[in-house]
Amino acid sequence: MRVLGVDPGLTRCGLGAVEGRPGAPLSLVAVGVVRTPADDDIGSRLVAIEAGIEHWLDEVKPDSVAVERVFAQHNTRTVMGTAQASAVAIVCAARRGLPVTLHTPSEVKAAITGSGTADKKQIGAMVTRLLRLSATPKPADAADALALAICHVWRSGAQNRMAEALARARAGKGAGR
Amino acid sequence: MRVLGVDPGLTRCGLGAVEGRPGAPLSLVAVGVVRTPADDDIGSRLVAIEAGIEHWLDEVKPDSVAVERVFAQHNTRTVMGTAQASAVAIVCAARRGLPVTLHTPSEVKAAITGSGTADKKQIGAMVTRLLRLSATPKPADAADALALAICHVWRSGAQNRMAEALARARAGKGAGR
Repeated sequence: MRVLGVDPGLTRCGLGAVEGRPGAPLSLVAVGVVRTPADDDIGSRLVAIEAGIEHWLDEVKPDSVAVERVFAQHNTRTVMGTAQASAVAIVCAARRGLPVTLHTPSEVKAAITGSGTADKKQIGAMVTRLLRLSATPKPADAADALALAICHVWRSGAQNRMAEALARARAGKGAGR
Repeated sequence: MRVLGVDPGLTRCGLGAVEGRPGAPLSLVAVGVVRTPADDDIGSRLVAIEAGIEHWLDEVKPDSVAVERVFAQHNTRTVMGTAQASAVAIVCAARRGLPVTLHTPSEVKAAITGSGTADKKQIGAMVTRLLRLSATPKPADAADALALAICHVWRSGAQNRMAEALARARAGKGAGR
C-alpha cells in the first residue's frame, strides 16, 4: 500500500509518502514540505496549501492518507493554523474518495520508536533507518510526515490482522454449528 | 454590498447573507445552516460542508465573506471541528477570489448590540430588528451568521470612511503646499 502522511501546518506542511506493507521493508516514495508566507492572509495560505496537497495527490497517487490529529491543548498560538491546514488536507483526500485516518503524535512516536514520548531527533533517526535513507529528511515536518505514513502502514496491518482473525473466528464458529 | 456570514461548525454551520451599506437599512438575502451527522467520519463531514458552502456561494453571489474567528481557548471539545469548518469556508471563498474577513465573537456582539458580552438572545433580537424580520432566525447559528454579515457591512463602512478621510487629508496637504 502507498500512504501519504501529512504533518499539517500553515508555515510548513510536511508531506511524506511511503510504499510498503507490515512485516516487509518500506520504501520512500517522496518527501517534502509545502510552505506559505507568514505575512500572507489566511485565505491565500489555505488556498496555497490546498494547491500543494492536490499536486502531491496527483503525483504520488496514494491508496490512503494519514493526517496528524491536532489537539486544542497544544501550543495555542499555532494550533488554529494547524487545525485549518489539517482540514484542507482531509478535504483534499476525502473528496477524491481516499480513506483518511488521523493518528495522534504519541501513536506515531510509539509506532516508530517504541516510545510515545520520543523526541524529534529519535523520530528522524528511526525514519532514516526504516526507509534506509542516507540522511535524515529535513525539515522535521517532512520527517514527521514520513513517520505518520509508516505508522499508518503498520497500524493498518495490525487492524487488518485483527479483522482477519475475527473473520476466521466467526467463520470457525459458523462451521462448528 | 452583499456579504455572506459564516458561523463555522461541523454539526451546524450557520450561513447568512445580507445586502446593504453602512447608514442605510439592511436586507436579508438568505439564511440557513449546513448540517453534517455527528457519526460520519471527519472527511465526509468536511466534504459535505464544502459542498454546502459552494452551493451557497453559487446562489448568493456575495461580494465578500465574513467568517467567525475561532480561538483555541474556547470549548476544547468542539474547537477543533470549528477551526476545521472555518478553514473550509475560508478556502471556498478565497479560491474564488472573494475577500475573506475574520471577526471575533466580541467584535460581532459589540457591532450588533453595543456590548461585546451580549448573549445569544440579544444577538437574535437585534438581527431580527435590523433586518426587519417577523421572527428570529433559528437555530442560533443561523442568526449568528447574519450578525457576522451585518457586522462586516458596518465595519467595512467604518474602514472605508477612515480610508477616505485619510485620502482627503493627504489630498488637502498636497493642495496646500
